[in-house]
Amino acid sequence: MNELKEECGIFGIFAHPEAAKMTYLGLFALQHRGQESAGITVSNGQRLFSHKQMGLVADIFDDQTLSNLYGETAIGHVRYSTAGGSRVENAQPLTVTCARGDLAVAHNGNLVNGEALRKELEAEGAIFQTTSDSEVFLHLLARSKKEKLEEALIEILKKVKGAYSLVFLTPNKLIGLRDSYGFRPMCLGRADFSYILASESCALDLVGGVLIREVEPGEMVIIDENGFRSMKITDQTDRRALCIFETIYLARPDSKLFGENMYLVRIEMGRQLAREHPAEADIVIPIPDSGIQAAMGYAKESGIPYHWGLVRNRYVGRTFISPTQAIRELGVQIKLNPIDDVLAGKRVVVVDDSIVRGTTCRKIIKMLRNAGASAVHLRVSSPPIQFPCFYGIDTPARKELLAATHTVEEIRKYMRVDSLGYLSILGLLDSMSKSGSEFCTACFDGNYPVEW
Amino acid sequence: MNELKEECGIFGIFAHPEAAKMTYLGLFALQHRGQESAGITVSNGQRLFSHKQMGLVADIFDDQTLSNLYGETAIGHVRYSTAGGSRVENAQPLTVTCARGDLAVAHNGNLVNGEALRKELEAEGAIFQTTSDSEVFLHLLARSKKEKLEEALIEILKKVKGAYSLVFLTPNKLIGLRDSYGFRPMCLGRADFSYILASESCALDLVGGVLIREVEPGEMVIIDENGFRSMKITDQTDRRALCIFETIYLARPDSKLFGENMYLVRIEMGRQLAREHPAEADIVIPIPDSGIQAAMGYAKESGIPYHWGLVRNRYVGRTFISPTQAIRELGVQIKLNPIDDVLAGKRVVVVDDSIVRGTTCRKIIKMLRNAGASAVHLRVSSPPIQFPCFYGIDTPARKELLAATHTVEEIRKYMRVDSLGYLSILGLLDSMSKSGSEFCTACFDGNYPVEW
Amino acid sequence: MNELKEECGIFGIFAHPEAAKMTYLGLFALQHRGQESAGITVSNGQRLFSHKQMGLVADIFDDQTLSNLYGETAIGHVRYSTAGGSRVENAQPLTVTCARGDLAVAHNGNLVNGEALRKELEAEGAIFQTTSDSEVFLHLLARSKKEKLEEALIEILKKVKGAYSLVFLTPNKLIGLRDSYGFRPMCLGRADFSYILASESCALDLVGGVLIREVEPGEMVIIDENGFRSMKITDQTDRRALCIFETIYLARPDSKLFGENMYLVRIEMGRQLAREHPAEADIVIPIPDSGIQAAMGYAKESGIPYHWGLVRNRYVGRTFISPTQAIRELGVQIKLNPIDDVLAGKRVVVVDDSIVRGTTCRKIIKMLRNAGASAVHLRVSSPPIQFPCFYGIDTPARKELLAATHTVEEIRKYMRVDSLGYLSILGLLDSMSKSGSEFCTACFDGNYPVEW
Amino acid sequence: MNELKEECGIFGIFAHPEAAKMTYLGLFALQHRGQESAGITVSNGQRLFSHKQMGLVADIFDDQTLSNLYGETAIGHVRYSTAGGSRVENAQPLTVTCARGDLAVAHNGNLVNGEALRKELEAEGAIFQTTSDSEVFLHLLARSKKEKLEEALIEILKKVKGAYSLVFLTPNKLIGLRDSYGFRPMCLGRADFSYILASESCALDLVGGVLIREVEPGEMVIIDENGFRSMKITDQTDRRALCIFETIYLARPDSKLFGENMYLVRIEMGRQLAREHPAEADIVIPIPDSGIQAAMGYAKESGIPYHWGLVRNRYVGRTFISPTQAIRELGVQIKLNPIDDVLAGKRVVVVDDSIVRGTTCRKIIKMLRNAGASAVHLRVSSPPIQFPCFYGIDTPARKELLAATHTVEEIRKYMRVDSLGYLSILGLLDSMSKSGSEFCTACFDGNYPVEW
Repeated sequence: MNELKEECGIFGIFAHPEAAKMTYLGLFALQHRGQESAGITVSNGQRLFSHKQMGLVADIFDDQTLSNLYGETAIGHVRYSTAGGSRVENAQPLTVTCARGDLAVAHNGNLVNGEALRKELEAEGAIFQTTSDSEVFLHLLARSKKEKLEEALIEILKKVKGAYSLVFLTPNKLIGLRDSYGFRPMCLGRADFSYILASESCALDLVGGVLIREVEPGEMVIIDENGFRSMKITDQTDRRALCIFETIYLARPDSKLFGENMYLVRIEMGRQLAREHPAEADIVIPIPDSGIQAAMGYAKESGIPYHWGLVRNRYVGRTFISPTQAIRELGVQIKLNPIDDVLAGKRVVVVDDSIVRGTTCRKIIKMLRNAGASAVHLRVSSPPIQFPCFYGIDTPARKELLAATHTVEEIRKYMRVDSLGYLSILGLLDSMSKSGSEFCTACFDGNYPVEW
Repeated sequence: MNELKEECGIFGIFAHPEAAKMTYLGLFALQHRGQESAGITVSNGQRLFSHKQMGLVADIFDDQTLSNLYGETAIGHVRYSTAGGSRVENAQPLTVTCARGDLAVAHNGNLVNGEALRKELEAEGAIFQTTSDSEVFLHLLARSKKEKLEEALIEILKKVKGAYSLVFLTPNKLIGLRDSYGFRPMCLGRADFSYILASESCALDLVGGVLIREVEPGEMVIIDENGFRSMKITDQTDRRALCIFETIYLARPDSKLFGENMYLVRIEMGRQLAREHPAEADIVIPIPDSGIQAAMGYAKESGIPYHWGLVRNRYVGRTFISPTQAIRELGVQIKLNPIDDVLAGKRVVVVDDSIVRGTTCRKIIKMLRNAGASAVHLRVSSPPIQFPCFYGIDTPARKELLAATHTVEEIRKYMRVDSLGYLSILGLLDSMSKSGSEFCTACFDGNYPVEW
Repeated sequence: MNELKEECGIFGIFAHPEAAKMTYLGLFALQHRGQESAGITVSNGQRLFSHKQMGLVADIFDDQTLSNLYGETAIGHVRYSTAGGSRVENAQPLTVTCARGDLAVAHNGNLVNGEALRKELEAEGAIFQTTSDSEVFLHLLARSKKEKLEEALIEILKKVKGAYSLVFLTPNKLIGLRDSYGFRPMCLGRADFSYILASESCALDLVGGVLIREVEPGEMVIIDENGFRSMKITDQTDRRALCIFETIYLARPDSKLFGENMYLVRIEMGRQLAREHPAEADIVIPIPDSGIQAAMGYAKESGIPYHWGLVRNRYVGRTFISPTQAIRELGVQIKLNPIDDVLAGKRVVVVDDSIVRGTTCRKIIKMLRNAGASAVHLRVSSPPIQFPCFYGIDTPARKELLAATHTVEEIRKYMRVDSLGYLSILGLLDSMSKSGSEFCTACFDGNYPVEW
Repeated sequence: MNELKEECGIFGIFAHPEAAKMTYLGLFALQHRGQESAGITVSNGQRLFSHKQMGLVADIFDDQTLSNLYGETAIGHVRYSTAGGSRVENAQPLTVTCARGDLAVAHNGNLVNGEALRKELEAEGAIFQTTSDSEVFLHLLARSKKEKLEEALIEILKKVKGAYSLVFLTPNKLIGLRDSYGFRPMCLGRADFSYILASESCALDLVGGVLIREVEPGEMVIIDENGFRSMKITDQTDRRALCIFETIYLARPDSKLFGENMYLVRIEMGRQLAREHPAEADIVIPIPDSGIQAAMGYAKESGIPYHWGLVRNRYVGRTFISPTQAIRELGVQIKLNPIDDVLAGKRVVVVDDSIVRGTTCRKIIKMLRNAGASAVHLRVSSPPIQFPCFYGIDTPARKELLAATHTVEEIRKYMRVDSLGYLSILGLLDSMSKSGSEFCTACFDGNYPVEW
């Protein structure tokens, strides 16, 4: 029942006869990364054409809209608003016509100096179409005197600070790039003879493609009629800062990211959690869907039987937008229903991936008690979240983060559980094969890689 | 990945200040029983008012439509077409004005003599509004000379043969009834001070209600300003014929039906399956979502570790209606994605709840092989389906049922699995606490309780 | 600025390869007869298919909906509600399936014993789909034991009292009929080799057809694969009662009805009005659009120059449905704007076709005064309306009819005009070539041909 | 049956409690000037908010959208595309946020150097949101260093060449201006205590306002909390070039423009036409609606009776967008229906306001012949159109203008009329009170006031 909002998903494909449909499928696989709006931009070799709307991928596009998007190269985007409000103008890809010709961009991440750059550009007479920081890239490019897009990009990225995985589309070129910290993921794949860029490898699977490798932090990938080239975009830093929440929760379990399979790494986090915080209990249950793998790992390590204690209504999206206040008050029951016959009289270990504000989790604990659980031990497969994210995840302000203002014991009391255990930062990092120093753990320790 | 279509779900509530909203929530909980259309009819004490549409409950109703449905008593219906085509006129509740006044009905089930009754009524000058058999009830009632609705119902039900759980609404009365075989479920509950009728107990949970008991086969329940009364509707039979597929697959795991919790009974079926058909393997995986509980039971009984080998895209409904032919060809990959890192080199037991035509299952087996499974053992938590259903489940014609025309060994070869095991009829019945003779097992053994 | 509501328009065509499109065009030409809803029903030789909706013809149908209406015979209807409320269920053609097969009807007129027949049928078990009287025809037909539709019609029409011009459609037959009084018009035409039935001849013009003749009062016209036949439907009466308001206002000026061209007969009414009520004035102006021809006739006869003193906003329909209360208060100014340069200092004869409640007319007179007219002489090309209509025109209750409760001099004072003249009943009847005894003049003299 | 497309209509109101509704009404009155899209932008004193859409004013706005447009100052626009394609992005008012704050503009006219300015701005890094020339004004303003909007406007207008009547809106200021040639009209009025700017005076009438005076060519009008100020915007020229087609056809007959009432001036053109080109005939008929006043004038001067020979279907807009090819072929009959009883055996003078391509007119002449007219004399109340317009009217290319490539006698033969007479340029100018040298007559004589 994770309350963190996914940020965005991006996809690009070069030279495929069904580019728009492939992009549609790629975005469908990335839908969990943003449910607010989606869009596709195609090139027919001369001009760019777009279709963007608020809503889910499957609702926005149909046969008609996809066949109107005629062309062999395309980029797409699913969005959850981080910076910039919730309105269709902010849907991406952002597309403009400027002296450089038609140009489109799809952006996953967040700039820490976006607002400052915008003010600067407006003072020089720039007119922004959106309230989204991503438009800054386009204005900087429109003003660059470098003729080649690659060179212009290298020039303008010197001014830009923050987290960005980007795909650019011109009438005859597809460019992908990832900031040198590597906050947000991006991978390179291939389907038939077409190169693909995507936020997660599950998007390659859906279109019948294969993963070649992840795009490196600080790498720019250029795909055009001459094939594939790679450039280093910047010499700013050697520090890596992969977002650790992608592995804990955001990425799909069938994706391979930062060299790991997400399903298996989360099982491992659950095992580690069981080692750090064992419990005397009869069953282990997850808070579905976010805590499932960690609960499975906990059960495997502890030997306590894994069960379903809560059933998730499959017709509810992660974020249920309820139509009435009356329903809103029913809150969690709409999403989750306890199975009394499983819970009654049992000592229960309940596992979730994280606690943000804690309000939802508290209601769930209450449901378990009402269903007859004789003891409830809460286990969380991430450390306490004490600091907000400025690199693309929509966390609340610091004072609303439960762990920023309460000790673990205070949280245990607030949750009314018999015991509470968070996975330690070291335990978390140990669950992964990559060195711990390559991750951004700012939300746990306040150690921000890029100043904001 | 069950291919059987749910039939319908019904809900009714008497004397609640937010009757339409409660019904909305009840239908939302019953959405899995029918995704084609939904409707709500309310009584304001004088007249009935309805809102019905093709689509999902959450899409059909909003604040506006619900507050227009002003009244304290309501019935609702979610539909998957069994008899009668797929068009909005057939959406239920069916509502008419006749000499008896306003009258509405919501029906779960299928009449075996529906067509014959319709012809007879038309010969007498009746004009039908729909192609749905459920309308027969209304015409029979409009023609009955019995003044009281209860008496008219008892009179007309003598002519009707087949499966029916029904709720009727008049301006000041709510009536529920269930045929004497009890094919389709219906339960009685209460929320605040209001009586509720619903297909499954999960609908009571969602509205904050409690289960009183199941409505008995052959029972008519009358709720009006004088409170609650029960009558026996018929003396046709003592035979019970509860639909066994409700327990295998149709009902939600958090529902209590026929005296059983669905989650636990399915775990038990998986255990029984493991006893009947053990396997040498490294992991047990379900075909999600339909095989999950049986796979968990199989793993528990066999000691083979339970894992996810296939990830289900949560943005796909049970029945994914793909917008283009191109996508349709991609078929199963849109719904399910294998996790190679889990499957590669492993001997896999894959568990599903049933096989109907077998085409989907065969594609999934192929995906597992492609992902590197070294052996695949298919286990099915129901017996082979050899006969079509005439009591409300949308099975294909007999010749399209794989097990009607193939031996188990032929099916094993067709599926290209190393071994195949179906749960036996006796094993299935043993998993449940009720006596086996109370169930309808016609789809397995052709023993039809009501002639058709 | 006539306040009377048109009733309905009907159209039917037999054996034309583009039957639905021809019907669409015919309805478009008849749009002035009803703007609330429209519908088309086609026969493909086996079954009937319909598309009906609230709104204007051009908004309801498009290429897609029309090509879905595949078949060579069709009927259509535009509706303004007279009996039965304003809801899409009441849109016509009404279509049912009964023992007789598929059957559709489109009705122009009003039954005086509709409610009584309905009650009678319901007592026998009939279930009505609509609140429209027109459905009575279908239930009577469904219950008739006569096998041939023509014979069943003759049988059932004995029970029906009131005004009706009707077209019936079965899978292979088109039938038109008109009550023996001939209240509402219907004509017979031909386009290419296809017979057509239509409310007015302007509908024949639009589809490139020619007028053969009017359908006679009391005549039934049967068109099928054997060609065209005519039968006398009833021997109830020899009295004719053509609706005189069709000639005064309702029918289009380019239609030929009751043997007259509507444009020329209205010019003649204006001439007669000038003879009966001359005036000393500088200009003659119409209240557009309803008074235009009478004003032209008045000007021709009197020699006073014809001018525009009020301009009608062409984007307003006859009945302007204003979106806000604020706009509703602006009232008449939205439809009509005075031309001060024409009116200032002039003695004005202003001509309209009728006065019903008089409220609108009074506002217009005030506008003319405000624009500087030095004298205003109101002339009305019909006699005072003193009695409501029960045969298909939506007049208000008697007490709301200005002329039912006020003398001409009282009306003159209320209108604040210098003089007021109504056309006399005899003068009106003299303007036409048919004998005056053939018309219904009940709205002027209370002489109702059919009891109600 | 004029084939020239109207260009645009603009409206602005300052400090009215119902600013959005007043603007809605103003646009409704100006609907004839553009039916492609419409929009309203309001200021709440701090920010600007807009609602724009393709379609007609009455379809785009409703209570909800208007009450969302909360604020006391507003501008609005109706559009027929001249430069820039037909898409919603081009709908006006155009609104941006730039360093200067929120800024909106609505434009009637056409720039002759719009494309060149756009290229220049793009070379400097500007990103255009639309393909409309009107956006040039906003980019020039965003780049101007003058702090006050009035001063910035005076500076940038030096660069702009062509026809423009403009209203600008900022959070606390309403500015109107008109190019120094005065091509397109704009007037100043007042309703209650609020100043209004509008393309035509009929918009003032609808909102219950009064005309103060026309905004002068070359005048800028500033309305803010300090009241009303006027400035001369430019010293480029003393030449006036009022668009003569506004008086011939474009403006509504109830508008007062260039000092004339449009209805009366068109009557006078008809009289002048009768003097220049008399005819031996029985009746004078207009091609409705465009030729009505000129036909009335012709009849008055010649003494030949004025009649309707063609009836216009009131449910067709000026430009009928037919839904199917089949209907498109029916062409003119959908809009106009001849009255045979009026035309048969008559010598007819038929009057229209202008001939552009001539194809529609030719079909109408044929209809008159088919209806039995024994002679047809065509009279046109404007001179032959030989040159395209570059100042805001959508004329076809020169080679498609019938009179550019044919003599009058050739046109007569092509039209198959017995005689043909065009009003002379001098006769046209004499019909008006203003000096002929103040008008642009480029479409007749190729004498273009501004080079293109």
